[in-house]
Amino acid sequence: MTEPTTATALSDLSADELESFLENQRTAYAELQGRGLKLDLTRGKPSVAQLDLCNELLGLPKGHLDAGGTDVRNYGGLSGITELREMFADLLWVETEQVVAGGNSSLTMMHDCLVQLLLHGAPDSPRPWSQEERVRFICPVPGYDRHFTMLASYGIEMLTVPMHEDGPDVAAVRELVKDPAVKGMWIVPTYANPSGSTCSQEVASALASMETAAPDFRIFWDNAYAFHHLTEDEAKSADILTLASGSGHPDRPIMFASTSKITFAGSGVAFLAASKANVDWYLGHQQFASIGPDKVNQLRHAQFFGSAEGVRAHMARHREILAPKFAAVDEALTSALEGRAVATWSKPSGGYFVNLDVLDGTATRVVELAKAAGIALTPAGASFPHGHDPRDRNIRLAPSFPVLDEVRTAMAGVATCVLLAAAETLSGVQG
Amino acid sequence: MTEPTTATALSDLSADELESFLENQRTAYAELQGRGLKLDLTRGKPSVAQLDLCNELLGLPKGHLDAGGTDVRNYGGLSGITELREMFADLLWVETEQVVAGGNSSLTMMHDCLVQLLLHGAPDSPRPWSQEERVRFICPVPGYDRHFTMLASYGIEMLTVPMHEDGPDVAAVRELVKDPAVKGMWIVPTYANPSGSTCSQEVASALASMETAAPDFRIFWDNAYAFHHLTEDEAKSADILTLASGSGHPDRPIMFASTSKITFAGSGVAFLAASKANVDWYLGHQQFASIGPDKVNQLRHAQFFGSAEGVRAHMARHREILAPKFAAVDEALTSALEGRAVATWSKPSGGYFVNLDVLDGTATRVVELAKAAGIALTPAGASFPHGHDPRDRNIRLAPSFPVLDEVRTAMAGVATCVLLAAAETLSGVQG
Repeated sequence: MTEPTTATALSDLSADELESFLENQRTAYAELQGRGLKLDLTRGKPSVAQLDLCNELLGLPKGHLDAGGTDVRNYGGLSGITELREMFADLLWVETEQVVAGGNSSLTMMHDCLVQLLLHGAPDSPRPWSQEERVRFICPVPGYDRHFTMLASYGIEMLTVPMHEDGPDVAAVRELVKDPAVKGMWIVPTYANPSGSTCSQEVASALASMETAAPDFRIFWDNAYAFHHLTEDEAKSADILTLASGSGHPDRPIMFASTSKITFAGSGVAFLAASKANVDWYLGHQQFASIGPDKVNQLRHAQFFGSAEGVRAHMARHREILAPKFAAVDEALTSALEGRAVATWSKPSGGYFVNLDVLDGTATRVVELAKAAGIALTPAGASFPHGHDPRDRNIRLAPSFPVLDEVRTAMAGVATCVLLAAAETLSGVQG
Repeated sequence: MTEPTTATALSDLSADELESFLENQRTAYAELQGRGLKLDLTRGKPSVAQLDLCNELLGLPKGHLDAGGTDVRNYGGLSGITELREMFADLLWVETEQVVAGGNSSLTMMHDCLVQLLLHGAPDSPRPWSQEERVRFICPVPGYDRHFTMLASYGIEMLTVPMHEDGPDVAAVRELVKDPAVKGMWIVPTYANPSGSTCSQEVASALASMETAAPDFRIFWDNAYAFHHLTEDEAKSADILTLASGSGHPDRPIMFASTSKITFAGSGVAFLAASKANVDWYLGHQQFASIGPDKVNQLRHAQFFGSAEGVRAHMARHREILAPKFAAVDEALTSALEGRAVATWSKPSGGYFVNLDVLDGTATRVVELAKAAGIALTPAGASFPHGHDPRDRNIRLAPSFPVLDEVRTAMAGVATCVLLAAAETLSGVQG
């Protein structure tokens, strides 16, 4: 960007100017198609370079005894090995006894909790959720598609609230929780998927302390990106367990985290952190489904990190790889779209996504155009329950997996698609 | 055993002889207590020597690509890596597309299936099982305690049938499945826990082909010990998937297996094998709960074994460690109890357990006496639903974990407890 922005908002163009602009975009798009690209920005996957940071894991653990002398190769130890629980208790600002170190997926731990709420309920539930006439969940949008598909698979009704820069819209949430059928809500509190926003201490406090009609209201606090900073200005996750406990609702939040985007995406360790009562409830059901987690993998991780400080240092190495990709996304979008008034996008300081809002009604078309040009994007609407974005404007960009040059190429292509779709719509032309 | 058995059945002793016998057993037991033992025969855990057979795993995998070139360090691949599925398809006599390689626990896969049957039902279910007025399961006894506690945790009613040397009592099963509330049954088909018996092809065929009132009847075929031979006379698991498919009930059986007692008990790979329709059903729900299994661990196992033949060769090394322990159990029991007519026990040719039936009404007392002498046994009745053995005679012995000398010592002690409890009961003396 060596020259000042001189672009005009598309809506300010005359009919002739718009027609000419549309023609130019068609040409640019034809060129894009001609390049035969094959790029993928669909999912928040770590890149090969990031995975390579962790290759030492492939030769670990050394030995087979944890710090307490337990042979990790044998059965048992449902709550996980102590040294890894201690490490992540430190990182998540909770007590070790509040942490369970589990298997390879925090999504599975969320699912386990949901299933037990459905089949048994929590200790403070009037009855199992599956015996309620209806169960509703509050879903800040845009949000994480897998949260929504999980709820949908069990027929749980999803009520959306806007996700702001400081977290979910508290007034909207407060209104919804007056309904006793509203049993819970999702939050990705730190560097949210996909908006990148971080739940403030004030918002967290309001959610922790608000009155809810359901006595067993649960916040699924999916802290997937707690340590995934992109700048030196590191966001601090609100201390939800303390806030909830302090306001008399200790069992309201259940926190989830994992090393999926710290070490190997499918072969990490997942964590649940909650009140002692919630931990006991979780393990009380889990004992019928498992004899224990993969403790060898837990020891492998404990040795690889060494300490909580080791995790932080490791995340700085991820940042070095990721930050330039996020900068490239912003650069490409700014260069092509600034001043055109057809798109806004997030400039996240952490996490794995850029949230791109295009001209209302054009997101599906943009994704379709990109696909036809060999650039795979997450389906439009994916960040909304049932994949339905009422304004058809939201696109989640995941720049982590491709190498830097590919990100640049892909994003320039996406920008072309955004402009073409907008010009089509403003011209009243069908794409 | 250098001298012929000369022992007399306790029930044939005169009152005086019995009194004197009881006194002798009390003395023997006092000596046993005086030794301050601390031995554990409670669970079917591999021993340190067995785990040591697999230490090469701690340094694997070499590289991070599976045979198809997929980077196993990243997300995805819900059904598991192909080379490991192929290997276990071969071992389990099924097609690769019928096999899912999952996480570290087959118990968890069984639980996942049960939960989905409860919350969604199978494609052939009239409704989700949780919406049925009642759900009943057939449980061959003695059986695996964790099967029973899982069912109990969901309020599923358990109907017992006798476990014979060739598998569950087919006539009893046939009678029970006339009830449409009877939705399924457990079987450990090969070297059953704890009886050691193996389901014959005939019994399997009868179970696969019988008419059931429930259209969605499921056999949870927990083939946990399929390759766990203790002699060269290797039992072959009945080919339940083919039998079921051939008799028009392809979706009836769901087979489970794992490497838990092949490699590291808590850090192995679990498998589900079933009709393609069942696999699709399982994965169709699993996709909402997981992005994929730990593929690094799967590659680690594929490299460690090399081939199906490698698994078989590895099991022969386990046999060398295990067989002497099972021989020691039999030797100790034979030496002390033969001819006394107060106990019978299995002489398994595979698996992890010896099934000991003592004099009716004395199993609880035997376990109590053993505990007070420092020998931990599985609680009496554990092999029955709700821990209730109606005859209070069944004790499950798990000789795999202690070293050989400890097994000898423990079993001599157990025999003393068996004799003392029997003498007490026959004398009408309270223990």
